[in-house]
Amino acid sequence: MKRFYSAVGASDMAALRSICEVVDDPSYNVDWMRKWKGRSSVVVRPRTTEEVSAVLKYCNQRQLPIVPQGGNTGLVGGSVPVKDEIILSTRRMDSINGLRDGVVKVEAGVILENLDSYLKDQGFAAPLDLGAKGSCTIGGNAATNAGGLRFLRYGSLRGSIVGLEVATADGTVLDAGYSTGLRKDNTGYPIHELFIGSEGTLGVITKIALAVPASSAVVNAALFSCESFNQVRGVLATARRTCAEILSACEFFDSEARRCVLEYEPGTTDPLGDDAAFRVLVETSGSHATHDREKLEGLLTDLDVLDGVIAPDATKAAQLWRLREGISDAMTSRGYVHKYDLSLPLEHMYDLVTQTRDRVPPNTTVAGYGHLGDSNLHLNVVAAGDDENANYELAAVLEPWIFDRVLELNGSISAEHGLGQSKNSLLSRAKSPAMLALMRKLKHTMDPRHILNPYKVLPPSI
Amino acid sequence: MKRFYSAVGASDMAALRSICEVVDDPSYNVDWMRKWKGRSSVVVRPRTTEEVSAVLKYCNQRQLPIVPQGGNTGLVGGSVPVKDEIILSTRRMDSINGLRDGVVKVEAGVILENLDSYLKDQGFAAPLDLGAKGSCTIGGNAATNAGGLRFLRYGSLRGSIVGLEVATADGTVLDAGYSTGLRKDNTGYPIHELFIGSEGTLGVITKIALAVPASSAVVNAALFSCESFNQVRGVLATARRTCAEILSACEFFDSEARRCVLEYEPGTTDPLGDDAAFRVLVETSGSHATHDREKLEGLLTDLDVLDGVIAPDATKAAQLWRLREGISDAMTSRGYVHKYDLSLPLEHMYDLVTQTRDRVPPNTTVAGYGHLGDSNLHLNVVAAGDDENANYELAAVLEPWIFDRVLELNGSISAEHGLGQSKNSLLSRAKSPAMLALMRKLKHTMDPRHILNPYKVLPPSI
Repeated sequence: MKRFYSAVGASDMAALRSICEVVDDPSYNVDWMRKWKGRSSVVVRPRTTEEVSAVLKYCNQRQLPIVPQGGNTGLVGGSVPVKDEIILSTRRMDSINGLRDGVVKVEAGVILENLDSYLKDQGFAAPLDLGAKGSCTIGGNAATNAGGLRFLRYGSLRGSIVGLEVATADGTVLDAGYSTGLRKDNTGYPIHELFIGSEGTLGVITKIALAVPASSAVVNAALFSCESFNQVRGVLATARRTCAEILSACEFFDSEARRCVLEYEPGTTDPLGDDAAFRVLVETSGSHATHDREKLEGLLTDLDVLDGVIAPDATKAAQLWRLREGISDAMTSRGYVHKYDLSLPLEHMYDLVTQTRDRVPPNTTVAGYGHLGDSNLHLNVVAAGDDENANYELAAVLEPWIFDRVLELNGSISAEHGLGQSKNSLLSRAKSPAMLALMRKLKHTMDPRHILNPYKVLPPSI
Repeated sequence: MKRFYSAVGASDMAALRSICEVVDDPSYNVDWMRKWKGRSSVVVRPRTTEEVSAVLKYCNQRQLPIVPQGGNTGLVGGSVPVKDEIILSTRRMDSINGLRDGVVKVEAGVILENLDSYLKDQGFAAPLDLGAKGSCTIGGNAATNAGGLRFLRYGSLRGSIVGLEVATADGTVLDAGYSTGLRKDNTGYPIHELFIGSEGTLGVITKIALAVPASSAVVNAALFSCESFNQVRGVLATARRTCAEILSACEFFDSEARRCVLEYEPGTTDPLGDDAAFRVLVETSGSHATHDREKLEGLLTDLDVLDGVIAPDATKAAQLWRLREGISDAMTSRGYVHKYDLSLPLEHMYDLVTQTRDRVPPNTTVAGYGHLGDSNLHLNVVAAGDDENANYELAAVLEPWIFDRVLELNGSISAEHGLGQSKNSLLSRAKSPAMLALMRKLKHTMDPRHILNPYKVLPPSI
């Protein structure tokens, strides 16, 4: 893409400083996996919507590109500059503005875990939970339509967001259902939906009105070992039947993922002794200890698995979760991770892991894990020799083959992570020319000077 | 709005007939409440997406306006012509194209009740249910983001739609997540969301991929009588706590609604003898008869109400539901109904009914009922003397006062019914100029010749 942006000069710095805090901090340039690195020396840190609006208005007039950044925990390089774009951090906008009729109103920079704690104190819970909860912001979650561990129970984050306040490219502030914060409001076009999952390329989300479920009084977890993926699928089917309305998570990981987490993540233990091909973690969240326990015991009775254990208390349940949640970090500590976040029809979900193992050089680590309830596979691959050359060769073996396979199977090349700068060039393969043309039209309509998060989401237009 | 459309001539008729079935049937011109009436003599009845696309392409070239119509059960005149627009009926597109991983794929013209029956046979349920289920189509439901009785449990229809196939104004067919039908797919902008709730003004929905919940093995219903709206709210709060994850509906109706339904709907009976100000209907849907019954009995123990009854069997439960579902028809059989579909903060939800009663002439019927879980009030008003003059005067007493009150309270003037031709002129009061400007931009981007469902949703631009 042609460079047609202005460069930040001294008068720009003065103008931005007159609006809000501006810092030069290289840490904002790098994503948490240290995979993508920009070279911006300008980080604006607004405290209010008005400041965000003023920054955008100024930058739009001057055609200065902007990268919105929340907790910077994304996995596709969407929240760091590609070049020297100005970084707009929402982290100082972290007020929780109250809860009414099960709808909480928050500023974009609120950390997910802080929101969850706030809600817990009032008998509610955040409808999403993910590994990065201690750092990610709810604004970033909304901008990327984050998925995670509670999707099976509460559906997509999109489904829980009832309204947004957004500053668009020219600084216009849209009250898109935020101030009313109603669960039902069928008046006019669903403007707020446009910004959910568009990764900061159409506007900067400043506030979110989020419908939140009641917290569950009783949470149980169980771990099962399975010798085949068919057995794994059987656990999901049986859990849906016996646990039904209290089923809140159904996660699987293979033995390679299990070995990595036990080896690289301190303090992880596996209460099941066998070395079976798979583990499945089932969580229930309900309101009645006796009923829930009976349902979970019904699951144990009905299941056809090698072995299984119900966590007797919250500490043991947390240990089971560590096995699953530790995988991502464990893989990262082994070296550079070729990460794929894929949706696939459940019946073919694990085939791709097996086929990947067949393709890669010996001693490559290939681990498969993910969210069974939404057919979301996380496939992680780490080269045997962790040097640049090995990684380059491995990438050539993996891509575009993996994407070809996923598209052949009618899957998604990015289930929950988004496209960012990592997969934007694949969009034209995943969607039809008509869909892509409409996306470009929307981008041009909403951000005619293309200042918002450039080089991301949409493929280069040349 | 200026008339700038072409008129349908003999060559147009020939062209349309070469594409698909064309009929002249006045019944398509009138909505089911007989409130709005167009004068179109051209109804096209395509059988396939290709036919829809060809019709649109032709009409766009000729600048002939089109009204998409499903079951024509809407309440805001959105699916009948305002003038002589061509009607595009989706009713012949009624194939159900299979179910996989809990996602069903259907053509737009499938009747909701037929879909629900199909799903029931396979252990699933439609995530929405409404009074018009025997006539409304899933395409119309999607185009209007229909709400209804299961919203409390399964959330908005929008949240369950994972993909759409849509024909846009120029006949382009968009595969917006339909063919993959994945619960998770964060690749590019959420194009399908644009068409949900935009009432056929941005495109014609031809196919829907819908995530569906497992059907519940056990359904119970209970009816309570309350002397105040505070008590009514108490039922919801207590039901959320004691029934928790099995709560599937919480509906209320006032004594005026109750009297109407008992008087005008044959076969309705009320098992509670008192004449208290309110009834609340609580439904639970779960998987375990004993557990569910215990939870419901816990509700009875914890509640502070005048009286209550749990339906002992499905027939009695259906009778309780008739009391609630019969209200709309009962009101209609009393005369012309001034209908308001409003979202309001729960604490102020019933005040508006009381205030309305204080404003209207003596002997006016003012009935309030609706969905407590989503703060969605249906306010129905019928004049004492059902003649045109009385209705005209009543309307002048009610409007714009009601809308003023709702907007003052941060509510919505159309919670689940949409705007159609009935409330489109109010949109500029409900949303900010910036929101309205963006909606107009989207309309112009998607349908530059404004052929799709003209005079609806957006207010006249003059």
